[in-house]
Amino acid sequence: MAKSKYEYVKQFERDDSLIPNTWLVIRIDGRGFHKFSERHQFEKPNDRRALDLMNKCAETVMTEIHDIILAYGQSDEYSFVLKKECDLYCRREAKILSTIVSLFTSNYVFLWKSYFADKELQYPPSFDGRIVQYPSDNNLRDYLSWRQADCHINNLYNTCFWALVHSGKTETEAENILRVMAHYLPIKMNCFIHCLI
Amino acid sequence: MAKSKYEYVKQFERDDSLIPNTWLVIRIDGRGFHKFSERHQFEKPNDRRALDLMNKCAETVMTEIHDIILAYGQSDEYSFVLKKECDLYCRREAKILSTIVSLFTSNYVFLWKSYFADKELQYPPSFDGRIVQYPSDNNLRDYLSWRQADCHINNLYNTCFWALVHSGKTETEAENILRVMAHYLPIKMNCFIHCLI
Amino acid sequence: MAKSKYEYVKQFERDDSLIPNTWLVIRIDGRGFHKFSERHQFEKPNDRRALDLMNKCAETVMTEIHDIILAYGQSDEYSFVLKKECDLYCRREAKILSTIVSLFTSNYVFLWKSYFADKELQYPPSFDGRIVQYPSDNNLRDYLSWRQADCHINNLYNTCFWALVHSGKTETEAENILRVMAHYLPIKMNCFIHCLI
Amino acid sequence: MAKSKYEYVKQFERDDSLIPNTWLVIRIDGRGFHKFSERHQFEKPNDRRALDLMNKCAETVMTEIHDIILAYGQSDEYSFVLKKECDLYCRREAKILSTIVSLFTSNYVFLWKSYFADKELQYPPSFDGRIVQYPSDNNLRDYLSWRQADCHINNLYNTCFWALVHSGKTETEAENILRVMAHYLPIKMNCFIHCLI
Repeated sequence: MAKSKYEYVKQFERDDSLIPNTWLVIRIDGRGFHKFSERHQFEKPNDRRALDLMNKCAETVMTEIHDIILAYGQSDEYSFVLKKECDLYCRREAKILSTIVSLFTSNYVFLWKSYFADKELQYPPSFDGRIVQYPSDNNLRDYLSWRQADCHINNLYNTCFWALVHSGKTETEAENILRVMAHYLPIKMNCFIHCLI
Repeated sequence: MAKSKYEYVKQFERDDSLIPNTWLVIRIDGRGFHKFSERHQFEKPNDRRALDLMNKCAETVMTEIHDIILAYGQSDEYSFVLKKECDLYCRREAKILSTIVSLFTSNYVFLWKSYFADKELQYPPSFDGRIVQYPSDNNLRDYLSWRQADCHINNLYNTCFWALVHSGKTETEAENILRVMAHYLPIKMNCFIHCLI
Repeated sequence: MAKSKYEYVKQFERDDSLIPNTWLVIRIDGRGFHKFSERHQFEKPNDRRALDLMNKCAETVMTEIHDIILAYGQSDEYSFVLKKECDLYCRREAKILSTIVSLFTSNYVFLWKSYFADKELQYPPSFDGRIVQYPSDNNLRDYLSWRQADCHINNLYNTCFWALVHSGKTETEAENILRVMAHYLPIKMNCFIHCLI
Repeated sequence: MAKSKYEYVKQFERDDSLIPNTWLVIRIDGRGFHKFSERHQFEKPNDRRALDLMNKCAETVMTEIHDIILAYGQSDEYSFVLKKECDLYCRREAKILSTIVSLFTSNYVFLWKSYFADKELQYPPSFDGRIVQYPSDNNLRDYLSWRQADCHINNLYNTCFWALVHSGKTETEAENILRVMAHYLPIKMNCFIHCLI
């Protein structure tokens, strides 16, 4: 049969299964979300509804993929942690990654209208993603600390920046003020963390 | 700073760039589309609107990702071919794969209402995907022949099966008739091909 | 310069560095050592000098590659364990593997005459090898238990087999006796372990 | 049985088979051959016997591994080309690499005395190696041109350098002369190529 003659091309597919007994972290990132947030007039620094939508999408992904035990998100990114013993799709990298990215994206578009009833989605947003393996519990904890520190720093900066802008400064003035302040002030604030167990 | 203390976790990310000078094929597949097509009462064997939607999504992906030179789809799957010289995202596998899967998914949900004005999307559909490298032009051609043969065989079968069902046979009767016929008849029909250049 | 015109071919080399913080085990195996041991008339079941030579080669490899913390060998195979923190050659797989296999092989031929003064090396022996990553201490311990159990079972069998042959049985008779005994006797013996710290 | 309890550790081995239908190039390099050539007082710039030994080792490797169709060497390195259709060890990277590096090394030590009858091998030399995949014939040709250009340039320089030293200049004087000359002279010479079909 004609089919078998061409079927040899399947041999070019690589086995991409990840090492057993490692924590798997899938991190997805919004593509071009700077533009996307402007086009949809997200409130600065944090748009409550946009963050709620992100969290809801993550929640739905976790409901569908039971092996995910923890998710942490900030801004336009989200990290999903699969437990060490996870054998989802025989730990095949492309299968796990593409499924989670697709589920998240699909929910984002599908649920948009529940969070932005008054604002039409202008164009379809997209996300990219990657998988990283962490052998030890400490490595995983440090990964989460890394994303949390990143969230803290960015949100601290953004909150100050937009407070200045809303108080009447131009964006350039706000930037300059923060550049100078960075040398003098040990500012602390609680960062926005959304963590689902 | 706290940030640098945790940043070592980035070292666990692997460089997954694909070999230069190979054809890259990204094939995406609908997840659970048997159930999805039933829930949305797709016409059997081929639902014109569902296929048009798939084609439109592929077209949009191609408009956004210029390195794609050819796309071929059937049923709930679509293959995208990146040219050999393509240096998209430095040929990083996860980045390319996740971006294309996400774009396709996003468009599918976003464009649904343009194709199914009278039918509400019941739940967000999703796709998985993979990337395969083909070194030679012959390998690529054979890959496309493989998908085309697969399309031909499946569509041939489905067309006959549903013709029998629509003519009054039960699904079990239709199955049995086709099992017997497979030994006797060299049936030929044109398969449904959607190929975008 | 002519050189730069061709230097693009270096881009085809892949980054094959292994994940940080995993135990790395390099196991090497003699190629065709059944024939090799016959051609050099190794004593059965265990040739003291051949095993001493294997051990000496492993010791020399460990002296040269300081990151190896443990080596375990039996018959014509040897496993080398690199500690989790090891950054030898930036953990590049091919570099680590090829270096250790080459060092072991080189020593085997070089040291042969110190162990077999009366027996000329008939032809150059060779080894192949692989690297496996183990995330946890338990996984590493189980790897070593696996090799030890393998050693135990093989050596138990070989010792009995050759004892029967040396007592006057044919090789076929010895095989049959052991096949029957396997059902009845919970034989235990100490296996030959060489472990270097 | 105890064996099966531990056998799960085999699951940590990755499938490292290379893509079908690509040229496979294995390049091996002497480790620390600057020191090795000094300790064995190799003649400068080219030691006839050392090069003959390298060539003989390559020849032996080719005799044993039939899938190698071409080998090219210079100085302390050698490249082996496996044909596109090659299915040696199911194209498993570690197996192919380790076997070829080990065979070459073993022969180097074994054959030493045939080429250096008057010079005892002081210590066991070793080689490392890598495998690179080239999809097209042009890529392979350019790889060989790259190594040939490298050989040409190095040998040209070394030949001039040692000619100056042998004529009575110090090594520093020779270096300075060549640095100046590099700006003025379009020197050409035939490089030393050893190519086995």
